[in-house]
Amino acid sequence: MISTVAIVGVGLIGASFALALKKCGFTGRILGVSSEGALRAGLESGAIDEGCSLESAVPRADLIYLSQTIHRIIEVFPALDGLVRPGALVTDAGSTKQTIVSAAGRALTKCQFLGGHPLAGKEQRGAVAADPDLFRNRRYVLTPTGANDLETPGAAEFLEWIKRIGAIPVVITPQEHDRTVALTSHLPQLASTALAAVVAQHIGSDESLRVSGTGLLDMTRLAMSPFDVWHEILATNASSLERALQIYIAKLEQIRQALDQPALRSDFEAASALAQKLRS
Amino acid sequence: MISTVAIVGVGLIGASFALALKKCGFTGRILGVSSEGALRAGLESGAIDEGCSLESAVPRADLIYLSQTIHRIIEVFPALDGLVRPGALVTDAGSTKQTIVSAAGRALTKCQFLGGHPLAGKEQRGAVAADPDLFRNRRYVLTPTGANDLETPGAAEFLEWIKRIGAIPVVITPQEHDRTVALTSHLPQLASTALAAVVAQHIGSDESLRVSGTGLLDMTRLAMSPFDVWHEILATNASSLERALQIYIAKLEQIRQALDQPALRSDFEAASALAQKLRS
Repeated sequence: MISTVAIVGVGLIGASFALALKKCGFTGRILGVSSEGALRAGLESGAIDEGCSLESAVPRADLIYLSQTIHRIIEVFPALDGLVRPGALVTDAGSTKQTIVSAAGRALTKCQFLGGHPLAGKEQRGAVAADPDLFRNRRYVLTPTGANDLETPGAAEFLEWIKRIGAIPVVITPQEHDRTVALTSHLPQLASTALAAVVAQHIGSDESLRVSGTGLLDMTRLAMSPFDVWHEILATNASSLERALQIYIAKLEQIRQALDQPALRSDFEAASALAQKLRS
Repeated sequence: MISTVAIVGVGLIGASFALALKKCGFTGRILGVSSEGALRAGLESGAIDEGCSLESAVPRADLIYLSQTIHRIIEVFPALDGLVRPGALVTDAGSTKQTIVSAAGRALTKCQFLGGHPLAGKEQRGAVAADPDLFRNRRYVLTPTGANDLETPGAAEFLEWIKRIGAIPVVITPQEHDRTVALTSHLPQLASTALAAVVAQHIGSDESLRVSGTGLLDMTRLAMSPFDVWHEILATNASSLERALQIYIAKLEQIRQALDQPALRSDFEAASALAQKLRS
């Protein structure tokens, strides 16, 4: 029975998860472990009930929710193993999974770890932007590595909470997760960044830049994401992403050689069908 | 004095231009030359006053506004030259300019031609989607080739109407237009189409496809554009676009080799600055 939750990293995701739990009927205690400013914001919004050190929060918690950056998550594992209550569930919300799941496998010997990735977010960051409905109708990926990982009491109850907060669980392996998001999330980001970088470099005047339509706006929205959000994601998914970029570059090269060929129609048709399926 | 306008191609752009003229005080006559269905829609919306054949419309018109597809525009030039009234102005709304402007230069001997490209549009097509405010606050590119092209009575009056309908005129050469839109419009289209085509090919299951965020939606909106809208644009701007694709591919290749390098930060920063400038 999950009665105490420790949110480690009280940012947008951690604070939203806490608010979502409370909105959906969780009556236990939620402890926050984070910087002073984040704890203050988390307490003010009612996301957390108490700000604690890692050392005081983890031994009390049945669910430890790691919502820091990828490297911070990996760094905290060794300390967790000495603090965690047997039977507790440790989960995370990191954007790549293989690196985190294998680090957890090496470091955590006394409790279960279940990798997670909620496909939710918004442009504002931090606990001040937290929203109890952030996960509603969004996919929440879980990446168990053992056959019974979702059937332990802690995992089964956590899965119930994911559903109660309105998210749609998707169960895949860490490898499949990373390969998929390389194509569906990280490649779109780099396609946008590269496009904006190229336009910045080759369109000299602001006046010429205005000779553009709404398409360029769509295609450069992601380019506004800061590098600090992305560098750990890109670095910890480099091999899947290298492959995704190779595939994308090959397709662009093929298009470049067929600009006046009717064969280009099949790419437009496949692309249009995919874009419409995404919206259905 | 422009008192009769012939709209050749009563589609979204042609019918919107006619409606915009009327809304902004044009009291002359607007003739439409188009397919039967388009003429009916244009008459119903009040965009045109009369549906005509090319042979009956052109000799009566002071301004001939060509808003067909690029190839149709080029095909109509030879016939125009035998019909047009001396002193009339012929202009067009084609999305690429070098091919059209040079074809006009060869074919039109009896009247002035001024290339144009209104950067306006919407997803629906045809005269039924026409909107008198379509051009408001949008750039309207004009591509004169002679020093005094904008100072003839017809061109000066046409330029006044462009401003009256709320558009912002931009005067550049056909070459500069095509080089610019290759980067700001055609490359974004192909970046989106290639991305969606690659995702379609490499993400097997619909369930995996759901493991994506809003970024993929942004980056695949353009991919819904039909090939029929694009194939003439791509074919008539192939050399600028090949160069734009080369530059884009080179940038992606450079990023691919630096996924775990801090050097990637400078691309993210340049991209973000450009994306913000576009929105300012």
